[in-house]
Formats: sequence, structure tokens, C-alpha cells
Amino acid sequence: MFIRSIEPAVCDTDCLGHINNTRLPIWFEYSRNDIFHIFNPDLDNIVWNILTARIEVDYLDQIFFPHNVEIRTWISHIGNSSFTVSHAAVQHGSVCATGKAVMVHVDPVLRKSVPLSTDLREKLTVHFIKGELDI
Amino acid sequence: MFIRSIEPAVCDTDCLGHINNTRLPIWFEYSRNDIFHIFNPDLDNIVWNILTARIEVDYLDQIFFPHNVEIRTWISHIGNSSFTVSHAAVQHGSVCATGKAVMVHVDPVLRKSVPLSTDLREKLTVHFIKGELDI
Amino acid sequence: MFIRSIEPAVCDTDCLGHINNTRLPIWFEYSRNDIFHIFNPDLDNIVWNILTARIEVDYLDQIFFPHNVEIRTWISHIGNSSFTVSHAAVQHGSVCATGKAVMVHVDPVLRKSVPLSTDLREKLTVHFIKGELDI
Amino acid sequence: MFIRSIEPAVCDTDCLGHINNTRLPIWFEYSRNDIFHIFNPDLDNIVWNILTARIEVDYLDQIFFPHNVEIRTWISHIGNSSFTVSHAAVQHGSVCATGKAVMVHVDPVLRKSVPLSTDLREKLTVHFIKGELDI
Repeated sequence: MFIRSIEPAVCDTDCLGHINNTRLPIWFEYSRNDIFHIFNPDLDNIVWNILTARIEVDYLDQIFFPHNVEIRTWISHIGNSSFTVSHAAVQHGSVCATGKAVMVHVDPVLRKSVPLSTDLREKLTVHFIKGELDI
Repeated sequence: MFIRSIEPAVCDTDCLGHINNTRLPIWFEYSRNDIFHIFNPDLDNIVWNILTARIEVDYLDQIFFPHNVEIRTWISHIGNSSFTVSHAAVQHGSVCATGKAVMVHVDPVLRKSVPLSTDLREKLTVHFIKGELDI
Repeated sequence: MFIRSIEPAVCDTDCLGHINNTRLPIWFEYSRNDIFHIFNPDLDNIVWNILTARIEVDYLDQIFFPHNVEIRTWISHIGNSSFTVSHAAVQHGSVCATGKAVMVHVDPVLRKSVPLSTDLREKLTVHFIKGELDI
Repeated sequence: MFIRSIEPAVCDTDCLGHINNTRLPIWFEYSRNDIFHIFNPDLDNIVWNILTARIEVDYLDQIFFPHNVEIRTWISHIGNSSFTVSHAAVQHGSVCATGKAVMVHVDPVLRKSVPLSTDLREKLTVHFIKGELDI
């Protein structure tokens, strides 16, 4: 499981007094840097070989400025050419939001799906957690 | 169905040459202004009475700067205290992304769910489209 | 003078109840699409030939969700290879923020400054306003 | 001098292949959390007592994903009720952007300027650097 700590900024909040819901997809994409490194060690956008097919976010509780938010990231499903990245946003020890991103391994030029190689599959498996995470 | 036209900005794109996937939740939240008006005609944040419980976005095709993107928004489900807003992002006549937001009608102070009144239910029904939208 | 109308979204606000100050540079960059068109009619990022050297924003008054904000954009200085774009953000008829962006005409590949051609200079001059704008 | 390290995300880049210029005001505001703590130890937005009157950013060189960017923040001017926060964004040891924010100490309710107390002035002075920073 990858863990990153985010310190919110004022511009992450909204007039309802909490972190705006659109920040979670942003924080989760930022956290997928750890996943991008697996597919593209230099994060070179010229040969970028994964794309985001779907995201979902469940907002369980409000998140507030300015306390740190821990983003936990793991692999929850490995398919043929696609896989699912799961995220949890934790503040003060409580899970405030969860999210998923369905990523597809593609040819950088054609953007057609390409089966995950054994090597990639093994690297993803290291971060695989089965079933619901007991956070 | 509510329709809004968005002209992308350079800062909506990313190094992969297209609109970044995190912009869709932002554009969809912006488009829900039309829904917020139903619940809160003056959009007064002091008595804000709906919250976002869940979002999902399916990325079907790339969206590019600088051509306009049409965001179509409608109600796809009306529950007891919650309802679902559906969105489609259309560029050059082709649906490039779809999304849903599960919204909950709440007490502004307690943030507890409150059943949709007959009045609210009727107003939502005006924008309700059953089944898959034939866009 | 170019004029664009922006309807704020909830995610443009912050916990202080107003539009967050970081949105102004975003709205001003969006408004420079009109200027980008002069330099690059198809807004093709492969041959992008201007860069932003400097921005400044003066925050004169608070801007609030959800009322429309008018962004007025004009050319306030034309140099040899650079020029200045000025902006004003107006809400309810009152100027709430002003901004400037110093843009440099460059070679798309080398990113070295290139003198403004007579043609570009004439096109910029159409939108030139001398001195302080009496908004 | 306060120092923060930022790891860029894909959504911080734009179609020109670098970090978008609108991210610098965001990163600089985030870095001012250290300054906000001086004025408002709990960062409680109810008694928020400083506002941003002006920002400026000079873009000296491109910043690229995914390498870390160090944001250096210090106080460059202390006035009667206002003060200036200076920032530098450093990547690979080179200053890529500099910025300033003129902040005003205000009454949280009236938003009228209030002279800096001796205590606040002393706390700001600790982070004061005179003249140009030899970065």
C-alpha cells in the first residue's frame, strides 16, 4: 500500500467550510504517481502507456482544512489489460472518502489496450489487497 | 435536460495533450449549479441543503482544447431523500465522458438526510429521464 | 476589448466564503484564449508561439458565488517582442480585481523571443487601450 | 525561510508539456500556510485575519513533471498593517519562478486593515530577508 500525506491549502476548501469534493479526484490522481512509476519509470509523457477509463469517489465524511489527509493507495483488481487502483482519504484516523480508478494499459501511440505483461502483473500484485480494506 | 457550453482553457489540459481527467468532476459540479438552484434558489451557502455522497465518471474518449464541450445534465433517479444527477460531456457531437453524482437532501445544520418534499420531487421530476439517455 | 462572462462554481469558492484568490489567474488565462487566437488561430499546441513571462493580480474587493463575473481583457502595452494583456474582473458592475500578463512572442521550438510582425502588431493594436481603463 | 517540497501531479501540467503557469499562485498560496499559522495558529476560518491584496509571479524557466519543486517562502517587507511574502520555486537547483503576495492584517469581521502588533511584527521579522535573495 502506498501512503502519501497531503496538507490542504485554503484553495482546496469551499464556501461550505470543508474540502471541496472535486479535490478528491485530484488528490487521488496525484497519489497514482506511485502507480505511474510502475508503468513508466521516468514518467515520460511521450511514451505514456496507461489511461484512466473510470473513476468513482464515495464521500463518507467531511474533510477539513488545515489538518493533514493521508491518501492510501493499493491495487484492488488486476484484469487482462486493465486494473483497478483503490484509494482511501483518511483524516484524524477516520476514512473520509474512498475512490477507485480503472486504468487501462495501452499502446502509447495507438491508445489501444495491451495485455499486462507478466512483469507488470507481478509489480502490481505486490500492491494488491483482496476484498474490502480493513482500514 | 440542462445544457451548458464550456470553452476549455489551457490550464484544463495536461501533458498528454488532452483535457485532464480531473476536470470532468469540476465541470460536472459546475453544471449542477442548475440543480442547486432547485434546492436553494439564492444559492446561499448558509442554508445549503444538499451534499454530494458519490460521484462516478466514465471516460469514453479524449476531449481536446480549444473546442467547446457541451455538458448535458439531467435527473436519472429520485429516491426518498437522495437523487442521482447524470451528466454527459459532448465534444464535436460525440459523448466523450459520462458521469453521475448521488446527492442527498439534508438539514443544513445537522447534515442529516431529509426526505424530498413533494415540491422538490416535482421539480426534480421535470428534469428526469428514464433509462439510458440516447444521446 | 474582449468580454467573457463566467458563472462561478462551488469549487471556485473557499472557506472564507468568497471566490478564492487563485481563481483569478485561472479566469484570466481562460480569457486570454481570445489573445491566443490572434497568435495561433487553431490554438495548436505544437506551434504555440507565446509564453507567459509574468502575471500580477490586484484584489480590490471580494467576489461571491454564484453571480456572474465579467472578465474584460485588452492590450495595454505593445513592445518589441512582448506585450501586456490587462484584465478586469467585474461583478455587479464593480471592478473586484485587475490583472496583467506579460506575454512574449517566441519561436515555438527554441522558445526564444521573436519580434512581433507588423501583422501581429496591427492585430494587437485593435485591442489596445492606452492608460488606465475607465471601467 | 520556510521550505516546502511539492511533487507535481499530471493535472498540474498542460498541453505545452510543462507545469501550467496557474499552478504557481496555487503552490504559493499553499506555502503561505506557514504564514497563516503565525496570524491564526489554529487556521480557524471564522477569525481569519489576513487577506491577499495583490500577487505577482515571474516565470523564469519551465517547470516539468514529475520532479519535485521546492517552494521557498520568506518575508520581504513589513509595513504598518501590510507585509509582503516572497516565494521562489526551485527545480533541479534552479529558480524557475518567483512570486510575491501583499497580505493585509485585518479585522476578521470588518475586513478593515489593523496595524501589525509588536508580537506579530516580531514573528514576521524572524522570517524577514532584506533585499534580493541570493538563491
